[in-house]
Amino acid sequence: MSKYTYLQSPSITSPKGFSSSGIKCGLKASGNLDMALIFSETSAVSAGAFTTNLFAAAPVGWCRKKLTKSSYANAVIINSGNANACTGELGDKNTAEMADFTGNLLNISPDFVFVASTGRIGMQMPMDKIKSGISLAVKALSSNGGHDSALAIMTTDTCPKEVAVSFEIDGKTVTVAGMVKGAGMIAPTMQVHPHATMLSFITTDANITKEFLNQALSEAVESSFNKISVDGDMSTNDSVIVMANAMSQTTLIEGKCEHSKTFAEALKAVASGLAKKIVMDGEGATKFVTIEVNGAPTYADARKCAQAISNSLLCKTAWFGGDPNWGRVIAAAGYSGVKFNPDKVNLFYDHKQVVKDGGDAGTKEEELADIIRKKEFKIRIELNSGSYSFSMWTSDLSYEYVKINADYHT
Amino acid sequence: MSKYTYLQSPSITSPKGFSSSGIKCGLKASGNLDMALIFSETSAVSAGAFTTNLFAAAPVGWCRKKLTKSSYANAVIINSGNANACTGELGDKNTAEMADFTGNLLNISPDFVFVASTGRIGMQMPMDKIKSGISLAVKALSSNGGHDSALAIMTTDTCPKEVAVSFEIDGKTVTVAGMVKGAGMIAPTMQVHPHATMLSFITTDANITKEFLNQALSEAVESSFNKISVDGDMSTNDSVIVMANAMSQTTLIEGKCEHSKTFAEALKAVASGLAKKIVMDGEGATKFVTIEVNGAPTYADARKCAQAISNSLLCKTAWFGGDPNWGRVIAAAGYSGVKFNPDKVNLFYDHKQVVKDGGDAGTKEEELADIIRKKEFKIRIELNSGSYSFSMWTSDLSYEYVKINADYHT
Repeated sequence: MSKYTYLQSPSITSPKGFSSSGIKCGLKASGNLDMALIFSETSAVSAGAFTTNLFAAAPVGWCRKKLTKSSYANAVIINSGNANACTGELGDKNTAEMADFTGNLLNISPDFVFVASTGRIGMQMPMDKIKSGISLAVKALSSNGGHDSALAIMTTDTCPKEVAVSFEIDGKTVTVAGMVKGAGMIAPTMQVHPHATMLSFITTDANITKEFLNQALSEAVESSFNKISVDGDMSTNDSVIVMANAMSQTTLIEGKCEHSKTFAEALKAVASGLAKKIVMDGEGATKFVTIEVNGAPTYADARKCAQAISNSLLCKTAWFGGDPNWGRVIAAAGYSGVKFNPDKVNLFYDHKQVVKDGGDAGTKEEELADIIRKKEFKIRIELNSGSYSFSMWTSDLSYEYVKINADYHT
Repeated sequence: MSKYTYLQSPSITSPKGFSSSGIKCGLKASGNLDMALIFSETSAVSAGAFTTNLFAAAPVGWCRKKLTKSSYANAVIINSGNANACTGELGDKNTAEMADFTGNLLNISPDFVFVASTGRIGMQMPMDKIKSGISLAVKALSSNGGHDSALAIMTTDTCPKEVAVSFEIDGKTVTVAGMVKGAGMIAPTMQVHPHATMLSFITTDANITKEFLNQALSEAVESSFNKISVDGDMSTNDSVIVMANAMSQTTLIEGKCEHSKTFAEALKAVASGLAKKIVMDGEGATKFVTIEVNGAPTYADARKCAQAISNSLLCKTAWFGGDPNWGRVIAAAGYSGVKFNPDKVNLFYDHKQVVKDGGDAGTKEEELADIIRKKEFKIRIELNSGSYSFSMWTSDLSYEYVKINADYHT
């Protein structure tokens, strides 16, 4: 039984000592909220996972450097509408200025400020707007501001995405909360430091060591954000940042006690919850599909096979059409680069067997179509060529995806 | 200057001694032509390149085995409407029976018969229809039958695809001709033996050694079919088969003389011409895009980078929308797995520089949009991190692609 419970009204300000705000500074043509600030009263132990894309954006570079200088942080300043990627030295300078300006107003070192950006690549930041925005965001900080900040980080998202859980240590409540944005350019492969434009911010009042926070984040990212794919495109800006401010005032969580396990599970629950929300809000997505690969020769193979199926346009369009077309699933596994014996492969849609020993299992087409027509289903492939498994969450590909991405320009 | 000329009315029966036919045997619900036969009066030296997909279809297995038994062939029997893939032992038996039945009617050994299939995966062949079809196809053989056979191999193709060139050796004309089908599930990576469902058949009356034909085919496939991608999905049935029947009666082409070079160029011209036609007829494609990668650390890297851009949904939808969004191109290069210095990267759309040293080159958005709105353009990326190059031909991704593949069922 899990030892944590989900909060009914989750927000990154649910943990003690965090305030937040979401305001407009004029980066989005739509005039929607486009800047968010997260602030912790006390300096928080922090960890981050960032994109592995070689064209990592300026703020990603800043956060990596910041973490080598200090693992403590009080704030994260975030803008949507401009990715500050491929912006050269000026982009780096502007990011540093965002941290400086935020730090000055909050009376903290810029090295205690994370910066994150999402939006169009290749444009310089309009620093006048940014600075006015930061001033506004600092003034608007509130313990009720979490939802506004979840709105402010959105780009093509259709809804804000927030998850929070809490559990007890010796009668004291510990809360872990997170928000995320991302609907397209989603195929994170992040390393701690990890990668999408997936931006996720996790706050907690847990009292935890830097080392264990890093370890728990690494495991949580691998079993959540690194398992999702909307379109197979990895962003330059993907970032997950977690801050733990110790304000729950419990005994220290350092990786050996029972509480450590509970914390790690709670963090995974938040990260998985957020990751699933990204897929459900995937650009134009109409279905949530779980791909489970078992019996692969190696872990990397299991992942490679799951990715090939998740990223196959022919599979994704068949799902959109409610077409059980298992040949496309099998073909994707066959070109994934994983070595297995095709004559040993079994395939299941939910609990119905589709392929047995590499050929048609004889289940009626109509029964399979009933599954693929559902909003949510699982595709499980048993390679029977090893003992490794990997699961992914993905979506279908609809007209709407094409529309959104042929038109998206800001 | 090239030494070959293109034929005005190309057909696989353009070379001497070849006849062909395309007939209906009832495999397609549409009632369209669905079976083709190619026949050479004299036994032809042959070579093949086939899919590297682990779930290679039964006819692919047959052709590979046939080539290890004998490199000579007189005929190719081809059906559309059923891929005979993932059909187990019965599938193998049915393919052998197709070769047997064709061989009997043509009075040749089944080992001199290639078999190729394309269509839906996972269904057994309706052998009654197939056999009646083969009888019809044999009766219909004609030196004018090339165009019918190009029609009969189509699935989601909107038009037949044929190319032929001829050149002279000592006053005698040598002709190389080919036809191809394929519009979706196109990302061939074939080896001689290679991979798409791309099926291509090339005939020639050249007098050539087995060894040099293999070498020339290998080079031609690498610089044509292996350079294209419509959707990044590699098929179970991709095949290229070439037959050379020596009926031009020239001196032997064996790889050292000037004629060898001319033959190799002519074969490349036919293969490239066919490959381009596939991309132009790509499912729902509205644009023909050349991706050129230069300055990569290795050949494999150059290819990997070109593939990442070609397969990026965000790039493909931006092209469809006429959006110059270079951030998506750069992001795809950045996650391709190739190691390079992002600050040294230059990017060009046709002759306009888009990115200089990893950042905006300052060309006006409107000038770039004018290029991306064209039917055909080139994207060239200079990694400046090595000396290897690779070019690919690809298409955009439109609503129509989604429609075709969400609905395609037979």
